[in-house]
Amino acid sequence: MPTRFIALDWGTTSFRAYRVGDDATVLESLSAPHGILSVAVGAFDATLESHIGAWDVSLPILASGMITSRQGWIELPYVTTPANLTSIAGALHVHTSNRGRKIHFVPGVSTRGNDGMPDVMRGEETQVMGASKGGAEYFVTPGTHCKWINVDNGAITGFSTYMTGEVFSTLKNHSILGRLMTGDTHYEAAFEKGVRAALKDAGGFLHRIFSTRTLALFNELSHDELASYLSGQVIGTEIAHATANHPMGVRYNILASPALAQHYVSAMKLAGLQVQFSPPDVAVTGLHKIAANAGVIP
Amino acid sequence: MPTRFIALDWGTTSFRAYRVGDDATVLESLSAPHGILSVAVGAFDATLESHIGAWDVSLPILASGMITSRQGWIELPYVTTPANLTSIAGALHVHTSNRGRKIHFVPGVSTRGNDGMPDVMRGEETQVMGASKGGAEYFVTPGTHCKWINVDNGAITGFSTYMTGEVFSTLKNHSILGRLMTGDTHYEAAFEKGVRAALKDAGGFLHRIFSTRTLALFNELSHDELASYLSGQVIGTEIAHATANHPMGVRYNILASPALAQHYVSAMKLAGLQVQFSPPDVAVTGLHKIAANAGVIP
Repeated sequence: MPTRFIALDWGTTSFRAYRVGDDATVLESLSAPHGILSVAVGAFDATLESHIGAWDVSLPILASGMITSRQGWIELPYVTTPANLTSIAGALHVHTSNRGRKIHFVPGVSTRGNDGMPDVMRGEETQVMGASKGGAEYFVTPGTHCKWINVDNGAITGFSTYMTGEVFSTLKNHSILGRLMTGDTHYEAAFEKGVRAALKDAGGFLHRIFSTRTLALFNELSHDELASYLSGQVIGTEIAHATANHPMGVRYNILASPALAQHYVSAMKLAGLQVQFSPPDVAVTGLHKIAANAGVIP
Repeated sequence: MPTRFIALDWGTTSFRAYRVGDDATVLESLSAPHGILSVAVGAFDATLESHIGAWDVSLPILASGMITSRQGWIELPYVTTPANLTSIAGALHVHTSNRGRKIHFVPGVSTRGNDGMPDVMRGEETQVMGASKGGAEYFVTPGTHCKWINVDNGAITGFSTYMTGEVFSTLKNHSILGRLMTGDTHYEAAFEKGVRAALKDAGGFLHRIFSTRTLALFNELSHDELASYLSGQVIGTEIAHATANHPMGVRYNILASPALAQHYVSAMKLAGLQVQFSPPDVAVTGLHKIAANAGVIP
């Protein structure tokens, strides 16, 4: 099968490239820990060639993710919600690389919450375009910065970012709550105890997380269990707050692998939510749809 | 005036010693950044003598604070709520130092929240004993770990810890929210914008704090203003949650100097709370009352 285009999913901590044939078929892929934070200013072009230098320079490239952020290769303004395939594909920014590659950068999407605050995504919009089937859909991206995304007939209508993964790791590594933690094993009962405490939301986040310390002081959790408990507290807090603004009786589409999102999904189920998983490589499917919509590929 | 006893307020980050006369009069005081975290295991006695070696070894010493915690000199079990002067003074632990000083360690206080979770204090109970005048009283201790403390006729009946100061500094120094921050100036308007956003509590803490980044991306806050904004968000979150569990129409007694608690108090006032300040050295007054109640001093 001939290659139609090259897909780049270039985020904060990782670089992924795909040689893509018809119908978004992945013919070859590679990944490296060369996210934008590890690339020096001015070195994006050379980093790209170091990975895909052997691939045909005449192939169009579609690139999405934090690569279009202020810390990336080229900063693109956001497309605003509602954002669909047409508005995103219509805002591609073409850049010619040193070796003459045509790189079509995909912009991120911004929205405003009910409180008037801006919120942003770069990369998730491409995953959503790849995964969307039409009608009313609800997507969740677990991770460092989780996003809850509402989609209506293929258009992203609104979303909220939660700093869940980053707040957990920051508290674990840099606050007093991490001092008593030992081990890396996941303890499901301790995790669920944290989730349930958070779902009740007694006293608020800044108060509740202190129990990570006091339960250890009172020997009601072992030091080995504390990281799982705090993880449950933080993820449960996200879910409690997200479900105050998002519907309960729908099915949430998780944009992550079942293995990586395992604990996150168990917390969602504790909260009474229904979940399903999108297939892997939805980012490639999304870039394929965007490329076709923009006329970059037939 | 003769010295009646020596008061030690020995916390996590600082060491304070007072030579105290009649009626809790401070005759001499000294402080050093030798909190328990900076003292090696087994070195508490020597650290004490390095500071007060010149003071009469026959004087009784009253000591409170994190010095009685697991990381301190001697770990004492907590007195449980309701905790008053009699129950605290009745639980003093006497230790004789290498030079023969009699040190009366004051235990901390523990409670259980409505959710059954333990909460703890070490040192604040002594400040409350010093500041309490009787009747229904409400104390707040701003800082790394803020505490909201209910007191009834001199007895601590319940309290909640909020990890406000520590969460703010952890996010500022170790998360993406700190990346765009510049400068150390306080910007009152940005601070109040953060407080007001938190008091509305739209979307929950893990979501709202992300606006520290997006408001900068959209040039709606300058990089210089971001730390003040995040501080307002975190302090406002504490106040929003604390006032869900504590009464609104009362006067809160702030156990901190007006200068140090200035921004914290302006956030409380934005939330419609009334505040007053306790006099300085309430810890010394508290240790004096405890010493008298225990018969350590006449």
